[in-house]
Amino acid sequence: MNYEEPLFFTVMQYAEAAERDVVDMVSGNPDWGAPDGVGEGLHDYAETGGEAFQYPPSDGLRELRERIATRRGVDTERVVVTNGGAMANTLGMARALERRSGDEVLLTDPVYPYYPGKAEMLDGTTRFVPVDEEGALDPADVRAAASDETACIVVNTPNNPTGRVYREETLRELAAVAEAHDALLVSDEVYDHFDFTGEFTSALAIDSEHVVVTNSFSKTYAITGFRVGYAILPKRDAPAARTRNMLTNVATSRPAQAAVLHALKTTDADYHEANRERLRERVDSFTAALDEAGAEYSTPEGAFYVLAKFPDYPGTMANVKRLVDEAGVAGMPGEAFGDARSEWLRFALVTPRVDAAAERLAEFF
Amino acid sequence: MNYEEPLFFTVMQYAEAAERDVVDMVSGNPDWGAPDGVGEGLHDYAETGGEAFQYPPSDGLRELRERIATRRGVDTERVVVTNGGAMANTLGMARALERRSGDEVLLTDPVYPYYPGKAEMLDGTTRFVPVDEEGALDPADVRAAASDETACIVVNTPNNPTGRVYREETLRELAAVAEAHDALLVSDEVYDHFDFTGEFTSALAIDSEHVVVTNSFSKTYAITGFRVGYAILPKRDAPAARTRNMLTNVATSRPAQAAVLHALKTTDADYHEANRERLRERVDSFTAALDEAGAEYSTPEGAFYVLAKFPDYPGTMANVKRLVDEAGVAGMPGEAFGDARSEWLRFALVTPRVDAAAERLAEFF
Repeated sequence: MNYEEPLFFTVMQYAEAAERDVVDMVSGNPDWGAPDGVGEGLHDYAETGGEAFQYPPSDGLRELRERIATRRGVDTERVVVTNGGAMANTLGMARALERRSGDEVLLTDPVYPYYPGKAEMLDGTTRFVPVDEEGALDPADVRAAASDETACIVVNTPNNPTGRVYREETLRELAAVAEAHDALLVSDEVYDHFDFTGEFTSALAIDSEHVVVTNSFSKTYAITGFRVGYAILPKRDAPAARTRNMLTNVATSRPAQAAVLHALKTTDADYHEANRERLRERVDSFTAALDEAGAEYSTPEGAFYVLAKFPDYPGTMANVKRLVDEAGVAGMPGEAFGDARSEWLRFALVTPRVDAAAERLAEFF
Repeated sequence: MNYEEPLFFTVMQYAEAAERDVVDMVSGNPDWGAPDGVGEGLHDYAETGGEAFQYPPSDGLRELRERIATRRGVDTERVVVTNGGAMANTLGMARALERRSGDEVLLTDPVYPYYPGKAEMLDGTTRFVPVDEEGALDPADVRAAASDETACIVVNTPNNPTGRVYREETLRELAAVAEAHDALLVSDEVYDHFDFTGEFTSALAIDSEHVVVTNSFSKTYAITGFRVGYAILPKRDAPAARTRNMLTNVATSRPAQAAVLHALKTTDADYHEANRERLRERVDSFTAALDEAGAEYSTPEGAFYVLAKFPDYPGTMANVKRLVDEAGVAGMPGEAFGDARSEWLRFALVTPRVDAAAERLAEFF
């Protein structure tokens, strides 16, 4: 399996080189803009200098960690601020692998491609558990796949690419599987502000010493380039994760942390509700077009993506390129996300031109 | 060995809790302020938003990489922009360890403590080669210590903590040792703008497929909190390092990259010369006080630090605390940097109060 970014770039470059107008439904970059607090926070920080331009604490600015801890209802000592959700997941998976003799990482299929990439980088092995057509993960399947070789179970809710929001009962059962094998459940919740069901539950709701929750402000505040995320680890595991973070990166970039901290203080719930509402509308118009095109899909419960399967049109790179050339819509090939959705294409709804894309697809198929 | 940061914090906290005034000579944070371009660049970036707030290329903003490549006289494809020099060193050492069956990392003693910490994190083993009293590393000693188990040789020039600037001939011989064992020489050159001898040579001057050079803007622009560094790798090794960077961090924080890019365009040589001149003056007044105190030391050729050995006063944490309480000067215990300098103390000259500290030490000893 390739990693998302190179494939992403392959598709993007192909779309840019196309002679026709193409709607970009490839990237996961929010198009609705950051809250004002981000830019304000950067301006304020730019005025400081001196000491304020020097190393922040390795695990994050104290006030930022405290605010995160308060919001999430955990002890500050459990929070490590990281270079984006990426490093938070790296810390969680590395901790799971180093604390156990087993080297197996259980992942879903389809999967966010960075997870198997990280597992490999950390000398882990991967085992995939397919989800059902609606994207639901059956904890019984995970239980059957798990063994004492299992060091880590990684899930993403709301899910990229399926759009599924995992229910509390699912997470509770996954945590129980992790406990049964002394493994860690890593729950990546970067899309938690994009739940359309009202049923999203963080894995933090489960009182377990075997749960790591990761998150970031990349999607929350539409600032994927700032690289501010965090991991919330069990008390027992936080010191080792903190050391790894320090040895890898020393600390997370301070201007970005300062901007996020200011945004946390100044952004109200309306910003998030408006973004959800915008996405809901896009989901509606896009899925209406999919109906018209005779595609299979499941309506996303959260996150930014729709997986769709068109008649006799498997999700290969060749078919993605044909769609760019002949329909003017760029998506991601399902085969980028594993075996289970190789017949599917993934479309990201983070463009104002969802309606145009929908029309083009309905016309093409 | 402990890592520098926790020890650093231990000393800092002790000094802050002291009832008397204490001069901080612990941290390596420049006190002379960033060039104006840094704040200007942040302000400019804060005005952008939208697309410009989203993921930069994983290996760095194109224009930043190109400027670095031009300055360093290498192909842009060899440059990976990283989360500070820390991540650049992580990439270099990880690449050395993964491309070879041997797992040994050769380090100097004394050593910057993050290097052995990283080696351990990356499942390497460490072997230390002592430098002489002046901080000079004899390549013959490295050659004698090296074997086919050697994956990596890590040096730092100008050196923390010895202040030594390695000569071109030394680097050339070290590269030859690396070549003889198909290992990589990682040359960490973050203090390259703080060479007082005019004899600093980057390891890039050596035409070898076995040399990785790491650097950062942390010290160069007095912005240790921004976390923008880079690795320059052999062409053969750059793609694997790029992948590891992507899988670990996705990318380096974009506001910080934008600020550094603006500073690169707008900062002239006077900024750097003024900083060097300030440090030279501090070295002079501090070493004069060391003479008065009857201390051994070698005059630093570069970087921010002076290692000093006082009569009957070994470089233990207990003695560091006593110096805080009784002299009002906080330094780092030599034992933090390995075995070879456990009798010594390290003083950082990045405080405007070097003269006061010098007087206090001369009086105390």
